[in-house]
Amino acid sequence: MPSEYPATALELRSTLTDDGVVRLAIRRTDVADPADDQVVVRVEAAPINPSDLGMMFAGGDPSAGLPAGDGIHDAVAVPVTEAAVAAQRARLGKPMPVGNEGGGVVVAAGSSPGAQALLGKTVGFLSGNAYAQYRTLNVSQCLPMADGTDPADAAAAFVNPLTALGMVETMRSEGHTALVHTVGASNLGLMLNRICIDDGVGLVNIVRKPEHVELLRSLGADHVVDSSAESFIDDLTDALRATGATIAFDAIGGGDLASILLSRMEKVAGEQAGEFSRYGSDTHKQVYIYGGLDRGPTTLRRDFGMSWGLGGWLLTPFLIKIGQDAADRLRQRVADEITTTFASTYGTRLSLADAVDPSQVARYARMATGDKALVTPQA
Amino acid sequence: MPSEYPATALELRSTLTDDGVVRLAIRRTDVADPADDQVVVRVEAAPINPSDLGMMFAGGDPSAGLPAGDGIHDAVAVPVTEAAVAAQRARLGKPMPVGNEGGGVVVAAGSSPGAQALLGKTVGFLSGNAYAQYRTLNVSQCLPMADGTDPADAAAAFVNPLTALGMVETMRSEGHTALVHTVGASNLGLMLNRICIDDGVGLVNIVRKPEHVELLRSLGADHVVDSSAESFIDDLTDALRATGATIAFDAIGGGDLASILLSRMEKVAGEQAGEFSRYGSDTHKQVYIYGGLDRGPTTLRRDFGMSWGLGGWLLTPFLIKIGQDAADRLRQRVADEITTTFASTYGTRLSLADAVDPSQVARYARMATGDKALVTPQA
Repeated sequence: MPSEYPATALELRSTLTDDGVVRLAIRRTDVADPADDQVVVRVEAAPINPSDLGMMFAGGDPSAGLPAGDGIHDAVAVPVTEAAVAAQRARLGKPMPVGNEGGGVVVAAGSSPGAQALLGKTVGFLSGNAYAQYRTLNVSQCLPMADGTDPADAAAAFVNPLTALGMVETMRSEGHTALVHTVGASNLGLMLNRICIDDGVGLVNIVRKPEHVELLRSLGADHVVDSSAESFIDDLTDALRATGATIAFDAIGGGDLASILLSRMEKVAGEQAGEFSRYGSDTHKQVYIYGGLDRGPTTLRRDFGMSWGLGGWLLTPFLIKIGQDAADRLRQRVADEITTTFASTYGTRLSLADAVDPSQVARYARMATGDKALVTPQA
Repeated sequence: MPSEYPATALELRSTLTDDGVVRLAIRRTDVADPADDQVVVRVEAAPINPSDLGMMFAGGDPSAGLPAGDGIHDAVAVPVTEAAVAAQRARLGKPMPVGNEGGGVVVAAGSSPGAQALLGKTVGFLSGNAYAQYRTLNVSQCLPMADGTDPADAAAAFVNPLTALGMVETMRSEGHTALVHTVGASNLGLMLNRICIDDGVGLVNIVRKPEHVELLRSLGADHVVDSSAESFIDDLTDALRATGATIAFDAIGGGDLASILLSRMEKVAGEQAGEFSRYGSDTHKQVYIYGGLDRGPTTLRRDFGMSWGLGGWLLTPFLIKIGQDAADRLRQRVADEITTTFASTYGTRLSLADAVDPSQVARYARMATGDKALVTPQA
């Protein structure tokens, strides 16, 4: 048995119980020996993405967390409404692993050539249990980085980079030539902006604050529209006309933004259509909801003809759909450009103990733009 | 020049003007001589489908029609709101042809073998200008019926039959095995019910009145759910569970029916899923809106995971998408089963003069189940 990793290590788990509480706790767990095609990664960093919060806090209110340690390890308890508990019966009482992705160093490897090739490498990984000191992972879950890469830079190599690339790939594969992104100033939005500049793809960035217009413009974005401005609808229409964007990716979800997007795309399409049709233009207009910053209902006024679609968009089914070769191509681009196109910035770094500290929880769960948290489990 | 058709004949046209009035009028028009691949059809019958009303009355209020003849020909004038006028600028002042489909007898034909083969035949046709005494049409617009078919039976061979078949084809091509239809007791719904019984496809019929439950059951439907019943949600869930339906076609459009459908499909999918996922089940759930009986906004609560889609569904793009061969196969089935599977029933028959009579307009525009109107232009 190799000795480069301990027999046990610390991890975070989230347990929802029937009494309306979700408990995010540090606990000690076994570090499994690697099978032939596995490696053991010493986890150096793992980001807290919006997509992690649901599993961590089960839709509860992270601003109302209280200390809930058991005397040995720290924990935080967060209240969850009865309705949210009812919607998540399948996880009741089960300590769920948390942390979609992370970065670290491969400290042990199984016997397969693929595993051996990773020994000593810095890797990013996608695992669903990244908030831990050590993880035993399949080779296929790891993305090796160039020698000398800081493991912290490798920590966010999957969710945001592949989602941003996936948006552009989806745009192309569904026959569109430009796209809209509704949270332009997010880490994901900044990546998407860099990809679109590099690839010459038209991008309409929607932001929610005037200062974010300036930020994106300073980063070379041609089309930035502020949804808090009185001229939003006209500005959006102009940007859609200029780019020809007929697909949008929306992280907000609730409210009437999807309806506005479809309606304005249809307006531009109608300007270009020759003949009148009571079914609207032939131009297919698509909005994908990939997040839910606004959990309220989505309202569609259906003033956009009959050629339209709205749907959920999720990374994993997208990667399965495009197949291994195409997914590998995207992953390789991420590895090659991890410190440029796909660089992330963090507002705070947290030890595992910090990650279950109620005041830290209240802060990082707000997901304020520019204040993203990075968990550093060795700290 | 052949003499089997007159030089001029009567037709209906609909003209929207800037003063907020749409005028549906009889007028005299030339009957064009057929080109090589064309035929002249003496139109015997043409149904008024829900999809015809938009072009006829431009979203105005058909219950408020007034006589508006010009002294030679009759017409009806219907008020249209300013917003509806603004949304239809492209048709302002243009006399738009009306009537998506009809049936008649081919009385003259061009020189091509395809055209000659239709001479004397009863045909159904799709033209967008069917409310007329004679029409010169391309061979490809016509569907020849077996000898002895009543032209009235051929009048509704396209819109409802191909839409019903298109729903089943779409269901299959997108990987679903059973479907939901939200207006089960409509002419279209009854056709779909017959198709699904013949083809062994699971169908959940949603109806809005208790008596329609009885009607559909008497016609052999296994799953009929009354949306006016207090037990609607549970009944729907049971029917979804029994059929495994994960796609729905909705003619209502507004309100929360699409949201309820997606949510209940997800509930059933979740019962079958093994592992908990905060993104919901992997089962793709789809609702297509193909009509707008409720013009109000569509509200989605998004309590159905991330694997879902909502979109518009329209017959013509569907037929283009499946290609000529597949479309021909569907058309042939319609011709073969026009008096059985695809039979329509009508509550009233109207001459062209009746069709612009304000009291008749108010009646047929209500589109009451069982009171469908058939225009008979030779009457």
